[in-house]
Amino acid sequence: MNFLFPEKTRNSLPNMIREVNQDGAAIPNFISLAVGNPALEVIPVEAIQKAAGDVFTNHPLACVQYGSLLGDPELREYTTKRLVEVRDFPEKDQNIIMMSGAGQGIGLVPRAICCDGDEVYVDEFAFTNTLNAIRSSGCKMIPIHMDEDGMLPDELERAASSGKGRYICLNPNFQNPTGITMSLKRRQEVYEIAQKYDLLIFEDDPYGEIRFRGKHVPCFKSIDPDGRVLHNGSYSKTLSPGLRVGFLYGDNKLIKTLQLVKNSTDGQGPLVGQMIAMHTLRSMDFEAHIAKTCSLYLKKANLMVSTLKQYCPNTVKIREPEGGMFVWVTIPETVDIDEVYRACIQVGVGAVRSLAFAADLEHPGHSFRLNYTFPDEDRIIDACTIFGKTLSRYC
Amino acid sequence: MNFLFPEKTRNSLPNMIREVNQDGAAIPNFISLAVGNPALEVIPVEAIQKAAGDVFTNHPLACVQYGSLLGDPELREYTTKRLVEVRDFPEKDQNIIMMSGAGQGIGLVPRAICCDGDEVYVDEFAFTNTLNAIRSSGCKMIPIHMDEDGMLPDELERAASSGKGRYICLNPNFQNPTGITMSLKRRQEVYEIAQKYDLLIFEDDPYGEIRFRGKHVPCFKSIDPDGRVLHNGSYSKTLSPGLRVGFLYGDNKLIKTLQLVKNSTDGQGPLVGQMIAMHTLRSMDFEAHIAKTCSLYLKKANLMVSTLKQYCPNTVKIREPEGGMFVWVTIPETVDIDEVYRACIQVGVGAVRSLAFAADLEHPGHSFRLNYTFPDEDRIIDACTIFGKTLSRYC
Repeated sequence: MNFLFPEKTRNSLPNMIREVNQDGAAIPNFISLAVGNPALEVIPVEAIQKAAGDVFTNHPLACVQYGSLLGDPELREYTTKRLVEVRDFPEKDQNIIMMSGAGQGIGLVPRAICCDGDEVYVDEFAFTNTLNAIRSSGCKMIPIHMDEDGMLPDELERAASSGKGRYICLNPNFQNPTGITMSLKRRQEVYEIAQKYDLLIFEDDPYGEIRFRGKHVPCFKSIDPDGRVLHNGSYSKTLSPGLRVGFLYGDNKLIKTLQLVKNSTDGQGPLVGQMIAMHTLRSMDFEAHIAKTCSLYLKKANLMVSTLKQYCPNTVKIREPEGGMFVWVTIPETVDIDEVYRACIQVGVGAVRSLAFAADLEHPGHSFRLNYTFPDEDRIIDACTIFGKTLSRYC
Repeated sequence: MNFLFPEKTRNSLPNMIREVNQDGAAIPNFISLAVGNPALEVIPVEAIQKAAGDVFTNHPLACVQYGSLLGDPELREYTTKRLVEVRDFPEKDQNIIMMSGAGQGIGLVPRAICCDGDEVYVDEFAFTNTLNAIRSSGCKMIPIHMDEDGMLPDELERAASSGKGRYICLNPNFQNPTGITMSLKRRQEVYEIAQKYDLLIFEDDPYGEIRFRGKHVPCFKSIDPDGRVLHNGSYSKTLSPGLRVGFLYGDNKLIKTLQLVKNSTDGQGPLVGQMIAMHTLRSMDFEAHIAKTCSLYLKKANLMVSTLKQYCPNTVKIREPEGGMFVWVTIPETVDIDEVYRACIQVGVGAVRSLAFAADLEHPGHSFRLNYTFPDEDRIIDACTIFGKTLSRYC
């Protein structure tokens, strides 16, 4: 058989985030700072167990038979209401699709919006699955450089002037992997470019509610007079990733079309996780839970940054996060990052190289993404001490 | 905003199966023969409830945190072993992807295999989501006519001689919607054409184990020397649709690439349903359960066919199923099927028009798909009596 997948499919790369744990699997006492898991301490395990019991005991048929293609009706309503009331999103002419995690929105949007060769504008470093989803959809991914305020508008505008663009792909709050939050002024500039070239904006926002210092910046979705923003949200970071509940919120006409495409790409989404999420949310004070999560993450982020500052040489740049789940550590360009990576693995610490997030594989960068939410405090201190000392040998 | 979705996306049609229930929603005592739900009597509800309790009580962290991208390891192993031992599938050089229902495989394959304009060969009538998935992937769907043995090889070969084909999309056992099972000779002829033009074969097989009479025909996957068959299976019809557990089984190299594409289209699949399915399967005699399901469906199918034969005029053709979930009823070409459909809805019976399954919308056919698995026996008799009498007024 000579069958060959098309180039777009062969471009799908392995998940280099999860590979870090494989690389370290044989190292004794290995500490992974790789995967972006929430802290176990802030997942309401008992409330979820109780909710699961309620759902399977009291609504067994809804669990075992086919159900709504649109998702759990109560969770759709709850989520919409909360986006409007807590996050200041528009309500009129909007609609919501319940998703199997934010990951499903990341996958659905490029293939529904683009044909082979259409352009998508994306941060030079972005979430691995976001990049792979764009690559595997056959559209052309155009990386745009960033500064401390996010994507550079001049460069975006130069790219968009091709007229081939379809959407701008952003993760504007506590960006994965860099931790950058796009300033309000920058959001307005980006929005104007989207208007000028009639582009949609895909606002991936799994971390948006995990702000633990600094000033709130409005979401693109709350400053969207044209209805061109698709907001991709998730309960994975604020409630539980295992339940696989995300959502896509936006203009009713766009959402209705996207829902049809979704229907033929997973039949019916998994409703059990949505029902359990809804029962859990009903049993708890979700706003207080998010506040508690933020205060734990502030403590962990501070611990990571202070330990890194203590042990890293001062040629290394450490970006202090205002929220989200990651610290971005940049080493000098002259240093071989792969060598540093392997040295870290050998001494028992795994961090993700910027290559895993590079929209342009020719420019893999020279940074590491370190997660502070999952490891406990002792492990954060141990791992960052070892990591800093190892970097000192090279940087 | 002038944004317009590409043609492939605008081609995604509403789910005309589920619309039947909407059309009948206001009719008193409406009986739907539309949706392909399993009988409630054969869903092991208590075993699933118990399994869910076990999973959430004893493995809470596996339920609430991120987990394997590959799916539940035990269910992968169980499913593979069963496919090899019970269904005579090859084991060497094969691999499995766990899917969120068979629907996810239906969606994944066209977009991973085809670029805009590539050809896919499909039965003239096929499952609604299968057609929409192909349409929305941007490839060109070529309908091939069928006879009582399935897709016509001569017509398939003429189409494939374009050299633009990528795969043949089949549902060879108790096809949805027509109920046709492709003969072994026909399978061999189709396979030879796939070899000649180096096409893959997508064997969608959700109903394959629901045979209640007639002679077993081997799956394409068990007569696949080249490894060109992707077998798309499901626990939805044999265990529970609500758990959303399907799988794609095939050549290791193909599966590994498809797994990478899947990873970036839903992040991580829902594992809770897979764990509950595994715990349920471990607690029961699955082979006996399938046998029990088949004997119930034989009884219901016989009841539907005998009632239809009693009340339909003899200008109407009723195909007696050997398995699966549907009876295909064809009315004379001269009769306006939409008028008959609306008349049936008015008197309280919903069946799905062949338009919902037409690969070529210019040729919507003049048949109805009737489901016998979900309604109870009294409702089958009532609905088919009314349906037959209504057809008598037109045919």
